[in-house]
Amino acid sequence: MRFSSETSSGGVTEQLFTLPFTFGEIPGVLWTPDGACGTRPLILMGHGGGQHKKTPGIVARAQRFAAECGFAVAAVDAPAHGDRPRTEAHDRLIGEMRERMRTGGDVAPVLAEVHGLIAGQSVPEWRAVVDAVQQLDHVGAGPVGYWGLSLGCGLGVPFVASEPRVRAAVLGLNGAETSAEAAARITVPLEFLVQWDDERVPRAASLALFDAFASAEKTLHANPGHHGEVPAFELDSSLRFFTRHMG
Amino acid sequence: MRFSSETSSGGVTEQLFTLPFTFGEIPGVLWTPDGACGTRPLILMGHGGGQHKKTPGIVARAQRFAAECGFAVAAVDAPAHGDRPRTEAHDRLIGEMRERMRTGGDVAPVLAEVHGLIAGQSVPEWRAVVDAVQQLDHVGAGPVGYWGLSLGCGLGVPFVASEPRVRAAVLGLNGAETSAEAAARITVPLEFLVQWDDERVPRAASLALFDAFASAEKTLHANPGHHGEVPAFELDSSLRFFTRHMG
Repeated sequence: MRFSSETSSGGVTEQLFTLPFTFGEIPGVLWTPDGACGTRPLILMGHGGGQHKKTPGIVARAQRFAAECGFAVAAVDAPAHGDRPRTEAHDRLIGEMRERMRTGGDVAPVLAEVHGLIAGQSVPEWRAVVDAVQQLDHVGAGPVGYWGLSLGCGLGVPFVASEPRVRAAVLGLNGAETSAEAAARITVPLEFLVQWDDERVPRAASLALFDAFASAEKTLHANPGHHGEVPAFELDSSLRFFTRHMG
Repeated sequence: MRFSSETSSGGVTEQLFTLPFTFGEIPGVLWTPDGACGTRPLILMGHGGGQHKKTPGIVARAQRFAAECGFAVAAVDAPAHGDRPRTEAHDRLIGEMRERMRTGGDVAPVLAEVHGLIAGQSVPEWRAVVDAVQQLDHVGAGPVGYWGLSLGCGLGVPFVASEPRVRAAVLGLNGAETSAEAAARITVPLEFLVQWDDERVPRAASLALFDAFASAEKTLHANPGHHGEVPAFELDSSLRFFTRHMG
């Protein structure tokens, strides 16, 4: 794990890193409270499709999680996103998805295929990121949470299902197409976000994914609006959810 | 409006009252912070079917709303509940509903009929309660919120739809059978609770009622479990919701 820069803003230190791994280097970013020292909860944040590790929604959440709760927060570029190379398979599927969005075609099956392709790579990568980040003195081996919507949910479901260090997760804006089987293996507390008028994820598919989780504590928050219109008060809710479960 | 008793516990004063009205006296209870003085938000709490104004879930919520937020909270016995008389029509419908619960019959249509019968009386009663309570020096004419689940939602929907003093409401555990038309006239912010495995309210009917509200800000919270198993953390969420909107 190699750090390439360190800056501070609003009481939060941001460190850019790269982590060598099987499929090439993983570019990542770690946020911690300024002067952090000792073990603390670690929240992993998975960005949406077409976004990257420092997309504004991720940065805004990470800042608040670190400043208000004292958490460490890590985000990485998902495979084929941000600073990472795409393969021919990525290009073909992403092209097909954009074409269907443009022409009003059925996006859901292609989206599920994209998520499936990328998840095979990203699940072991997230595990490697936790291994590396938890060795740092100012993070340590505390409880782990996962936050991810849309692509971040599609990749998060198989990761959370297979990673016992994750104790709680905020997921959403994704359907059951590829991930129902993995969802049925998740038993940790969940907060699951649905946009009631989501133009990309059919409402029934969202509800089916919520239904599939095996967690005894799972709570669905649905709000009016399109895919990208999650209301600001849900960030407050995520903060309280992780505070409750990361202890 | 006549007060019959006043007690204090945990920093909250509880006053029992009766309010003379068209259909006989309305028995009610008012909670305010000890020593309250001046105008404050007023939250009306509608109890569930078969319950009454001082049912434990109401008292616990009212205590926290008054102690932690400084709100005034009022609850009354709904028609045919608590200390109030029942008519033959009430007895017949309630008997029919219990019979269907016992034998596993379809409860929803009878429940809707009960709510419809009682709402005709309770909507003007709630209005009279607001008129009377807001004349008190330690309540005043501040913003009004409504909280009610199950029967409290069935009666709350037509009340909130027709009462411009209500600025925000927490509703839930009820379906669209009787109230979809009134729901479509509600435009204030809503938090709407659904029990995912509700044995009395079909899931589709709950989602249809949420769908029917015209509010730009409405948020659905669904949790696993039966009708009576709303998780404790939803009380925290209601507190924050009203704090945000009663300002």
